[in-house]
Amino acid sequence: MIRFNSDYTEGCHPAILERLAETNFEQTPGYGEDVYCAAAAEKIRELCAAPDAAVHFLVGGTQTNVTVISAALRHYQGVITAASGHINIHETGALEACGHKCLAIETPDGKLTAEQVAAYVDAHYADESFEHMAQPKMVYLSNPTELGTIYKKEELAALYRVCKERDIYLFLDGARLGYGLASRENDMTFADIAALTDVFYIGGTKVGALFGEAVVITDEKLKQDFRYNIKQRGGMLAKGRLLGIQFLALFEENRYQEISAHAARLAEKLKDELIKMNVTFYIDSPTNQQFPVLPDAVLSKLSENYAFAYQARVDETRSAVRLCTCWATREEHVDALLGDIRRLLDTEEE
Amino acid sequence: MIRFNSDYTEGCHPAILERLAETNFEQTPGYGEDVYCAAAAEKIRELCAAPDAAVHFLVGGTQTNVTVISAALRHYQGVITAASGHINIHETGALEACGHKCLAIETPDGKLTAEQVAAYVDAHYADESFEHMAQPKMVYLSNPTELGTIYKKEELAALYRVCKERDIYLFLDGARLGYGLASRENDMTFADIAALTDVFYIGGTKVGALFGEAVVITDEKLKQDFRYNIKQRGGMLAKGRLLGIQFLALFEENRYQEISAHAARLAEKLKDELIKMNVTFYIDSPTNQQFPVLPDAVLSKLSENYAFAYQARVDETRSAVRLCTCWATREEHVDALLGDIRRLLDTEEE
Amino acid sequence: MIRFNSDYTEGCHPAILERLAETNFEQTPGYGEDVYCAAAAEKIRELCAAPDAAVHFLVGGTQTNVTVISAALRHYQGVITAASGHINIHETGALEACGHKCLAIETPDGKLTAEQVAAYVDAHYADESFEHMAQPKMVYLSNPTELGTIYKKEELAALYRVCKERDIYLFLDGARLGYGLASRENDMTFADIAALTDVFYIGGTKVGALFGEAVVITDEKLKQDFRYNIKQRGGMLAKGRLLGIQFLALFEENRYQEISAHAARLAEKLKDELIKMNVTFYIDSPTNQQFPVLPDAVLSKLSENYAFAYQARVDETRSAVRLCTCWATREEHVDALLGDIRRLLDTEEE
Amino acid sequence: MIRFNSDYTEGCHPAILERLAETNFEQTPGYGEDVYCAAAAEKIRELCAAPDAAVHFLVGGTQTNVTVISAALRHYQGVITAASGHINIHETGALEACGHKCLAIETPDGKLTAEQVAAYVDAHYADESFEHMAQPKMVYLSNPTELGTIYKKEELAALYRVCKERDIYLFLDGARLGYGLASRENDMTFADIAALTDVFYIGGTKVGALFGEAVVITDEKLKQDFRYNIKQRGGMLAKGRLLGIQFLALFEENRYQEISAHAARLAEKLKDELIKMNVTFYIDSPTNQQFPVLPDAVLSKLSENYAFAYQARVDETRSAVRLCTCWATREEHVDALLGDIRRLLDTEEE
Repeated sequence: MIRFNSDYTEGCHPAILERLAETNFEQTPGYGEDVYCAAAAEKIRELCAAPDAAVHFLVGGTQTNVTVISAALRHYQGVITAASGHINIHETGALEACGHKCLAIETPDGKLTAEQVAAYVDAHYADESFEHMAQPKMVYLSNPTELGTIYKKEELAALYRVCKERDIYLFLDGARLGYGLASRENDMTFADIAALTDVFYIGGTKVGALFGEAVVITDEKLKQDFRYNIKQRGGMLAKGRLLGIQFLALFEENRYQEISAHAARLAEKLKDELIKMNVTFYIDSPTNQQFPVLPDAVLSKLSENYAFAYQARVDETRSAVRLCTCWATREEHVDALLGDIRRLLDTEEE
Repeated sequence: MIRFNSDYTEGCHPAILERLAETNFEQTPGYGEDVYCAAAAEKIRELCAAPDAAVHFLVGGTQTNVTVISAALRHYQGVITAASGHINIHETGALEACGHKCLAIETPDGKLTAEQVAAYVDAHYADESFEHMAQPKMVYLSNPTELGTIYKKEELAALYRVCKERDIYLFLDGARLGYGLASRENDMTFADIAALTDVFYIGGTKVGALFGEAVVITDEKLKQDFRYNIKQRGGMLAKGRLLGIQFLALFEENRYQEISAHAARLAEKLKDELIKMNVTFYIDSPTNQQFPVLPDAVLSKLSENYAFAYQARVDETRSAVRLCTCWATREEHVDALLGDIRRLLDTEEE
Repeated sequence: MIRFNSDYTEGCHPAILERLAETNFEQTPGYGEDVYCAAAAEKIRELCAAPDAAVHFLVGGTQTNVTVISAALRHYQGVITAASGHINIHETGALEACGHKCLAIETPDGKLTAEQVAAYVDAHYADESFEHMAQPKMVYLSNPTELGTIYKKEELAALYRVCKERDIYLFLDGARLGYGLASRENDMTFADIAALTDVFYIGGTKVGALFGEAVVITDEKLKQDFRYNIKQRGGMLAKGRLLGIQFLALFEENRYQEISAHAARLAEKLKDELIKMNVTFYIDSPTNQQFPVLPDAVLSKLSENYAFAYQARVDETRSAVRLCTCWATREEHVDALLGDIRRLLDTEEE
Repeated sequence: MIRFNSDYTEGCHPAILERLAETNFEQTPGYGEDVYCAAAAEKIRELCAAPDAAVHFLVGGTQTNVTVISAALRHYQGVITAASGHINIHETGALEACGHKCLAIETPDGKLTAEQVAAYVDAHYADESFEHMAQPKMVYLSNPTELGTIYKKEELAALYRVCKERDIYLFLDGARLGYGLASRENDMTFADIAALTDVFYIGGTKVGALFGEAVVITDEKLKQDFRYNIKQRGGMLAKGRLLGIQFLALFEENRYQEISAHAARLAEKLKDELIKMNVTFYIDSPTNQQFPVLPDAVLSKLSENYAFAYQARVDETRSAVRLCTCWATREEHVDALLGDIRRLLDTEEE
């Protein structure tokens, strides 16, 4: 079984295991107050050209989303999100369990626009019953989105401007940020993202780490007391150094960018070759998640040797699936998959 | 200023004030454990042909919704609702503040169908990531809905059957129940509603009481420990007898039904006469909330003498508004309104 | 049965019922945005010599406590309270259900001291693990306390000073405030309380109203968006005018003060006469709640004709009970009770 | 600097790093549905002689506590805990943030007794206002406690019996369970604990793992839908296999027990030698946390070379500190510490 069903099927980049082994018997303070976390935070501040940013390390994505959002909002406030946003669909109501409503907006591609956000917020305050509705106070974006799409710099800049004009926080979920920045269609840097958000995170779990997400806070109000929130939401790892060590290993020698580029290249190969086979896509994704539409019969055969994620039924005989590449994907596996799809499609046509 | 903007613009049926005055210096135990609450509960059980039902009295609608729903659900469970449902739109995220997600389904008319509910729940369990999504465990209906529409008996029966097959609670918000049952299009009784739900409430606030909602619980599991939930959600009125006295007054001499019929008749008059003037409607409502579409110029003139609620822009020159009748509406006010609309429309046409 | 078990056994001052009847068919906007609420708020601002205070009307005490506290705190913050505080004991964990911890301090008499608060907060920040503990951000006092005791002006001033020095809110629960201010031992006015707290409320439910609590906010930060919080916590009464009308009636012609004085006088009579009978007290209360210690045999006999609340076992043969007077207590009932206790004690001794 | 301040100062047992390296490029399903988690769960079921137990792996202690407790309780229920319990003191109100009250009972040694629990629950139901108080529905124990003390088998059996008689869950926090079972004063096995609780966990973070806690559920009701709760509380690790692999490594070749015994032996050495020096203790702990009382001057000197945790001031010149041994503690460090304390005490006396 070759797995393309997600980007967290393997362990981690070997450099991380090496660093963990080297440092294993060192004694450090707990809870992220060690030298490795300090060094990793500094490295990330440099990468983001954000010398005053606060950097915190958490374990997983759902935890990070609820910690950041609940730290920012008061009880009666909600967060604007694409209806397809991870927080709205795939976190078992974790944010609502912290007391906050997802203010969901339908989108064709998982991306919110500045116009949508402006219209939503302005409509809230224009309604005479505004106090009877959750107050929009934060915008949640994922980049790449759950559908693999990414924001252009001018799109993010417009969103940020709309948010600042309305005194609303802009939060970017970068669980797959590496793969977004490595896309051939991307025009942003870490520094751009730091400059055009109030808080965002750099995903480790899906980009070469065993686990871990690095939260970068540039807004002053959000920095205050953030560690209380981490502790309260269960994200303060006792051996916090494990996170610092991993992010140090990922960001030395340009490693994070290189392994992201590897995944991006293989995803692009997958996409380009499928297009040559006249395969269509559920959504036009420029990143490591690809959503081809294939005949059910082909998928059934493929599933004997490959794992992929079911996305949606497209018509009576065809479905969309999700195929992920990642830092650890082997090119021969991509080639084998492409060969098998080509063969099955050819057979199908006969 | 004549008010048609809501159905809670006046005080209460005079019989209620009389009973409050008569009983004012009696001493009773607090928190709903008095003889008036007991008698009112018994009266409601009879009305509903539900001799084993638990009946509790709460103060307001939002409070009742969160108390019932949070009493029924475990933390990871959510409630299916029409996207236009009161709990999803107009309660400032009160339910999310209790930790639960609204699982919203778009509808054209504010009414959920049995098919929608079945499809939603079945899709949940068919998804291999089902544990990553809030579990649907209750259906919330309002009858009449926020758009004035009502459920037919067979529609409610189908919803109830779908819920029972899937082990899901069915909860009906009857904040305007009197006006629904009094509609010329209604085919249900209190007993039907008690038989086809697990819990519902009979609205007092909008139907002749100063305030108060009577919760009727027929499901055994929901009955357990319900008073803890009332207290926790701030709904346990110290002088609980005020609720018992009010519901007793409303349900003696068929009063609740009669004042509901009064409002229904005036709403029907309003609707019928507007139709004669070729006025169209935002939604075809058979109850006390009517949503005519009128030229903005007409609305602007009308607003000098009448209060109504803005509903939605329909096109560049016309908007839908909400007009409510209620137990206290005076027929001469309806006639005056109709006359003024007729006159303004005529002027408009010239 | 004559009831001394609580101060909410009767309906309301007759002037309130008169005003409700007079205004019954007036049409007003809902949700507290009517002229009666505006006038009552203005009256309260004058009474409190707090021209810039925000005044809001809520229905009940638990609801008011959770609304005020959750409006003030961020998720990771808690509220310091006497262990005997209502929020810590008798609200079914309502505050915790909103996500906040009660930081309880043991007291002999239900009163927190400035020293206790200062020590608690200073110890929090002195602990190197402070981020692992809920952050103290508000102090909750009740005046009178649950044990009938009251704060002296200099005690409240010291508490307020300690709070301001540490950037902590001071909130005073005045569910029985009238009875506190009417005590012969009181040295404070409404204006003193407004000046020495950030937010407090004037109880109506226990002091002559059918229901209702008037929240007075003097702190600017707490004023912001407060109505969202009221709506979210279920406290925004549709017919909000009912609260305005009641508080107007209570505060015209010095009525609130006079009916409080009536209850105070009768409580003092009760206390003084019991002392003459050599009855001791569980706590030395100067307000309308009295806690005499009586032989169980006497209590058993008394309970045939009088309702009172069991407080605590004192020794093998004696218990403390709570006797409340209120605005509606009849002096002949107090005399009858005293007579019966005297007679039963005499019999007991023989 | 030699660290005795906690038991999470080093990385992990080398066997774990070896297993992580060996399996690093294997592809597995995510979220704990892999073969390693299955095998580790089976191993733990055997160890606990609990063939029907559900076993789940979470990341950290606070997360595990809130997940288990919030999975068990309904909104209006609370958890009985020693006032010194971790959930009550050191989790930043994480449980309250999930909506539940800690029902704290003072204890001299961090241990609850069956009598205390029975009295608490019985008093709840004996109070006529019971619905006004959070309902006790679970007992939380830690073993070892936060003060290093442990439960004897007969104590746990009595607690379990009291809980079962009252239909209350018994939950044991075993963050340091290995060190408890390895104590010379312990008389329990894993199987005893599984048989005498409804749910408990075996701590990995403090006993040789990088991170991880293994939850063992024997109660049928608690098993239901538990994974939804894990996901909602942020504890469902994407690369769940990391937990399975670690617990497999810990439980092969009796490793968990052996490394626990190592820590226990060194703690006992520390204790016995300090006693010989006439050092007294804040609490008589039989496990890996020792709380000696030492002169402040000695502590000040010691702190130049050793890290320890400040516990409490004992008198004007002496304080209690916490010294922890763990799986990784080196005997020469213990000897050095003992030598330095002896020398400093001798100097002190002169």
